[in-house]
Amino acid sequence: MLKTVGSKVWAIPGGHVPLRSSGAEPGNTSRDELCVLNAGHFDAQLELTIYYEDHAPVGPYRLKVAAQRVRHVRFNDLIDPQALPLDTPYAVLILADHPVVVQFTRQDTSQAANAIATTLAFPG
Amino acid sequence: MLKTVGSKVWAIPGGHVPLRSSGAEPGNTSRDELCVLNAGHFDAQLELTIYYEDHAPVGPYRLKVAAQRVRHVRFNDLIDPQALPLDTPYAVLILADHPVVVQFTRQDTSQAANAIATTLAFPG
Amino acid sequence: MLKTVGSKVWAIPGGHVPLRSSGAEPGNTSRDELCVLNAGHFDAQLELTIYYEDHAPVGPYRLKVAAQRVRHVRFNDLIDPQALPLDTPYAVLILADHPVVVQFTRQDTSQAANAIATTLAFPG
Amino acid sequence: MLKTVGSKVWAIPGGHVPLRSSGAEPGNTSRDELCVLNAGHFDAQLELTIYYEDHAPVGPYRLKVAAQRVRHVRFNDLIDPQALPLDTPYAVLILADHPVVVQFTRQDTSQAANAIATTLAFPG
Repeated sequence: MLKTVGSKVWAIPGGHVPLRSSGAEPGNTSRDELCVLNAGHFDAQLELTIYYEDHAPVGPYRLKVAAQRVRHVRFNDLIDPQALPLDTPYAVLILADHPVVVQFTRQDTSQAANAIATTLAFPG
Repeated sequence: MLKTVGSKVWAIPGGHVPLRSSGAEPGNTSRDELCVLNAGHFDAQLELTIYYEDHAPVGPYRLKVAAQRVRHVRFNDLIDPQALPLDTPYAVLILADHPVVVQFTRQDTSQAANAIATTLAFPG
Repeated sequence: MLKTVGSKVWAIPGGHVPLRSSGAEPGNTSRDELCVLNAGHFDAQLELTIYYEDHAPVGPYRLKVAAQRVRHVRFNDLIDPQALPLDTPYAVLILADHPVVVQFTRQDTSQAANAIATTLAFPG
Repeated sequence: MLKTVGSKVWAIPGGHVPLRSSGAEPGNTSRDELCVLNAGHFDAQLELTIYYEDHAPVGPYRLKVAAQRVRHVRFNDLIDPQALPLDTPYAVLILADHPVVVQFTRQDTSQAANAIATTLAFPG
């Protein structure tokens, strides 16, 4: 088994949690989502910093991704040190103590129809 | 002809097969899909490991992609050693014995309207 | 001005032109699209090879992208040596004689609502 | 804090601002959007060049992204030296004097339903 796939630094410039949702919650709630794979044999501690357009960055937000596990986290659920505002441009920088792989997914249900988008994050 | 485009290791952290579908099957069935190009002159043997949030990874799932061929595989069709549960976060790590190129596509028809997303996988 | 941004080899594993369209043509026609930037000072000659699941690859399809120009090409419009079948998985390998940058876009209007997806191609 | 994540050169080949919009403006206006993270400690000056299919590139468009800030810019809002035409294929090349990370997002509301797509730009 491969222990080192991934990177310890990842960036996502295009964060923006849609303001509105339609359909049943929580499955159809509009959201930005962070998907982190830790294929290694050590638990990974992540520190997220959230960047804004008009004020200083906020963080660190701490996440643990156990060895040999994946974790999908909604940005809406990041509340410590401070919840993310809706409908506001943001970016995220992720520092990990072991290599992980990071993908970004958006589900936008602000209109009646579902819309989805995804991209890998940028490895630093 | 180029023989070595691609990588032998690929990761996709953001797997999640939608629970519901609308429209005619199988064309409009909600699904995650793996797209593998083997542009080389040797058949490639792939081993997929599926990672979960709350239990040990499952695998290997074995796939063959013949030389000079592409293969599009729905994750719903991976059943040996074990079918993937719907509506459950997962990641996939792909190991190949020859270089291939891997793209990930999602079609979500859980609401009335079609939604699609795609990204390259992360090369290890 | 930068002359060498990009790569001479690009791969896209996830091609699949949707069978159906809705809405006005050609703007809303379902399609896969290749977007090529040649930011350099030499015209670039491209050779595309299309890979299939169950028979030998077809090509080369030849495209020219002039110096300092972009070109967006629908896969539906590739007809020499042979038109691409609809609703069929394919991949494309692109070889260029000068560095270019390649992005892949899909517009799927097979249901009533528009769906779009995009990713960079994989640089070889 | 990491100062150098990113690249000073980025390319996006697949630009195309949809002609039509539906829903409330400006939230639901069809658009291409550039998302730039400057996680460094120096303000970054960006020069954008827009490439077309049938005439010479236009630019530079100048953008500043302050240190430790993100900026999301709609291509529709780039008006100096010249506004971008709608419904026209374009590409963008971005040169920065400090490393930044660039993501590209499209929101297409030309039909009644929302559609979104995103990808990282290509680092040069």
